[in-house]
Amino acid sequence: MGFNEELTDRVNKINNIIIDNLPAVQGKQKLLLEAINYSVQVGGKRVRPILMLETYKLCNGQNEREVYPYMAALEYIHTYSLVHDDLPAMDNDDYRRGSLTTHKKFGEDFGILAGDGLLNYAYEVMMDAILHSKDMEKNVKTGSIIAQKAGIYGMVGGQSVDVLLTDKPVGQNDLEFIFNCKTGALIEAAFMAGGVLAGANDDTVKQLEKAGNLVGVAFQIKDDILDITSTKEQFGKPVFSDERNKKTTYVTLYGMEKANEDVIKMSKKAEDIVKNIGDNIFLVELINKLINRIN
Amino acid sequence: MGFNEELTDRVNKINNIIIDNLPAVQGKQKLLLEAINYSVQVGGKRVRPILMLETYKLCNGQNEREVYPYMAALEYIHTYSLVHDDLPAMDNDDYRRGSLTTHKKFGEDFGILAGDGLLNYAYEVMMDAILHSKDMEKNVKTGSIIAQKAGIYGMVGGQSVDVLLTDKPVGQNDLEFIFNCKTGALIEAAFMAGGVLAGANDDTVKQLEKAGNLVGVAFQIKDDILDITSTKEQFGKPVFSDERNKKTTYVTLYGMEKANEDVIKMSKKAEDIVKNIGDNIFLVELINKLINRIN
Repeated sequence: MGFNEELTDRVNKINNIIIDNLPAVQGKQKLLLEAINYSVQVGGKRVRPILMLETYKLCNGQNEREVYPYMAALEYIHTYSLVHDDLPAMDNDDYRRGSLTTHKKFGEDFGILAGDGLLNYAYEVMMDAILHSKDMEKNVKTGSIIAQKAGIYGMVGGQSVDVLLTDKPVGQNDLEFIFNCKTGALIEAAFMAGGVLAGANDDTVKQLEKAGNLVGVAFQIKDDILDITSTKEQFGKPVFSDERNKKTTYVTLYGMEKANEDVIKMSKKAEDIVKNIGDNIFLVELINKLINRIN
Repeated sequence: MGFNEELTDRVNKINNIIIDNLPAVQGKQKLLLEAINYSVQVGGKRVRPILMLETYKLCNGQNEREVYPYMAALEYIHTYSLVHDDLPAMDNDDYRRGSLTTHKKFGEDFGILAGDGLLNYAYEVMMDAILHSKDMEKNVKTGSIIAQKAGIYGMVGGQSVDVLLTDKPVGQNDLEFIFNCKTGALIEAAFMAGGVLAGANDDTVKQLEKAGNLVGVAFQIKDDILDITSTKEQFGKPVFSDERNKKTTYVTLYGMEKANEDVIKMSKKAEDIVKNIGDNIFLVELINKLINRIN
């Protein structure tokens, strides 16, 4: 089986894990649960959970089922952030991945509530996993890392600066902060959680955080590049949107050549860290694929 | 010292705990942190944290500092729910407790983000408390209870039904569901968390959940009563708002007489449960005060 078939296989498996952990659509709050299920099932690359699982394998984790709840939870957190990003007061997007955004389908009030419910549900899933775990400390550490990376010093913090600087001049420091927090933090969480659950030591987890940061930031720079070089069909969303929105990107700040060079450099550094920790060819190929992607 | 002075004293202490646990307003995400601090510091009765602490004492908890992070976290969860409730797509309120609502002061985007950040921060605080606790299992149980009560089967679930049934006929079952979930759940969490952290057994925690439910529902019925019988000055918010909004309330469904009777009955039942568990006169007086309040 080639890499692409293998990837499809694994993403299908991960989709099942993510969907299995969702709440059943029933009861008086049925519409809320429907909106939550819709938001998650509308699809996505599932980058964070797959990176978490592969990092767990890299670090010789022996019982991959213990990672599943955290994989699902991290994807729920990523999804809630998209649902709220799409709201009229934020990016005001009607479509995501070719489907109506949650608030367009269920109303703005249920867009807000579905996001809230999904974020909280991620913690319900994690608390339950911790409560029923054999090695509680390791599981609490994992939950704590995810909480921090998702929060005011991580994803939400980055998002707030991105929103604040819309239509304003963005410097290199600002862009670095936004990339590190908004995109980097949850990818770091994926790498770190995989390591912690596999029993990796603190030094290794620090290395994994670095690798996650490199992959996350390279992924975001690549997004800025594709916005210019891709077509709508390949990219799956409108291109030249950054230019239309007069958005400062890595490309406008540093130029296309440096952007392309830096993506390759970062990807190489991340690979080196990963290879130094253990043996997982699939993870190395995946990092390459994410960074050399065309969509 | 009379009950009211004692209460003021304790609420002041609790305000300090809640504020001490807030993030410092600094860094690039300063505006987000300012909005979060503003939302929490704008005030409130601090009903949930005070009930948690008093239940802890009722159950002979010996080291009240271990309750502080959960008291703060529960108040943050309550606060985020108000911030999002006030948004234009929800209740569209410009003022709360005499101050501008968060989105009115910081913009709608930051209203959404401050709520998200605050909800996630509640879990950051709890995960950190769990990670550094001596008795990890007890602490995880507490975090898990709070997560469930705040979520799709608790507060958010109740809120979604309340929103869904706005301007629609509301039956007795619907109203019971909304009261149990929207108001009851977090008060149940307060009672249960206090008990679990004090080391109460499962039976006692079940009793505490019942007491919390009774107090929460009675509190909500009393709110419906005060909307009719109070003045704006006493109530601190506009009265007759339910009638103006054609909202089905406990009073419109059952009449004023039964509403008043039921509040007293529920309060009495809650007191009986509490007295049966232990000795905390202040908690009994507090329950009475909450239910016989004039604002």
